[in-house]
Amino acid sequence: MRLHGYWRSNATYRVRVALLLKGIEFEEVEHDLLEGHQFAPDFLEVNPNAAVPALEVGGQVLTQSFAILDYLDTLPGGPRLIPENPLDRAEALALAMGTIADAHPLIVPRIRKYLATELGADEAQVKAWARHWLIEGQKAYEARLERRPPAPYTFGDTPGLADIAIASHVVAGTAFEVTTEGFPHLKALTDRLLAVPEFAEAHPFRRREVVGGNKSI
Amino acid sequence: MRLHGYWRSNATYRVRVALLLKGIEFEEVEHDLLEGHQFAPDFLEVNPNAAVPALEVGGQVLTQSFAILDYLDTLPGGPRLIPENPLDRAEALALAMGTIADAHPLIVPRIRKYLATELGADEAQVKAWARHWLIEGQKAYEARLERRPPAPYTFGDTPGLADIAIASHVVAGTAFEVTTEGFPHLKALTDRLLAVPEFAEAHPFRRREVVGGNKSI
Repeated sequence: MRLHGYWRSNATYRVRVALLLKGIEFEEVEHDLLEGHQFAPDFLEVNPNAAVPALEVGGQVLTQSFAILDYLDTLPGGPRLIPENPLDRAEALALAMGTIADAHPLIVPRIRKYLATELGADEAQVKAWARHWLIEGQKAYEARLERRPPAPYTFGDTPGLADIAIASHVVAGTAFEVTTEGFPHLKALTDRLLAVPEFAEAHPFRRREVVGGNKSI
Repeated sequence: MRLHGYWRSNATYRVRVALLLKGIEFEEVEHDLLEGHQFAPDFLEVNPNAAVPALEVGGQVLTQSFAILDYLDTLPGGPRLIPENPLDRAEALALAMGTIADAHPLIVPRIRKYLATELGADEAQVKAWARHWLIEGQKAYEARLERRPPAPYTFGDTPGLADIAIASHVVAGTAFEVTTEGFPHLKALTDRLLAVPEFAEAHPFRRREVVGGNKSI
């Protein structure tokens, strides 16, 4: 499989973790979103949504990190990422959507760019915007994890979709100096997750070393 | 089942369509998001994410429109909402995420409120913001539907998840005077969808009649 990504991309991080957890071999092609490479005509052929990740599987291109993780979970081998029990599954998906459909869409580069260029937001205001939505997301995660404490991962013995999404939410916060202090359940879970070898190997900072990115996160 | 919703809520509209397509009986409890009812302590007990829809199923509360639709599809009876074939399924999920995880999170009330109160955006700027992201979403949908024309619905003879999401994207545009003119594939599909009885019955305008909402969309 060929993964189109970007080292800073939080959604690509999710896919990278999932591929590693599943033990699937892949190569990754780097597209610099801050340089606008997602709008190149060649790339729009790959993904009309002008976004990474995009995963080439045979002749088909899969897009949207959630759709890709769900697809990977239909393949044989490796741990399950999404629980089978329908109500557990619904909770896992809801946890995933807490960042995939609530917080993360608000802080991607195109949004920060619009705030600055169209609404005249300065750097501090853009950062405050990102911090606000990331912290709102952390509050919701803390409340949900308190109700249903991870043991040791969100749905049992192996990390899955919900863990990947929650870790990605916390990793996204790094760029805006959002920490998990004051969110004890979230902190305990994500400290544990970020130490899992596949999560460490997939981390944007590790990926930056591989591709030689020299910008700050 | 008991659905916590709001007549204007686009995500609740998705769930309402799905419940009707599946032929599942439900009652709907109205929460006025513009009045901030989602932040009431009672409601935060139901959903710590302070959002509708939330669906009570037995003793459990399901949240996030996508997680709810996925759950409803695990129940016996009614048409399938998500294709079984893994690659079709991945495309259906990606189409759904085009609004659920890309465009719609940007235009919900809490975002428009932040733009106005924290960034000083005036009414015209907030409207331009919403229109921009909705139209970007329509462009991506048009490109995807052109590649894989609906026949007559996105994945065959009965409308499903992708159709529900795409219809909800276009319905969301109504409030901001975004139309499907200039997007022929999207227009043909959504004109067809909005005429389906379950989509018509679930429509926010129809729901407003039921609850007696008197505000403009």
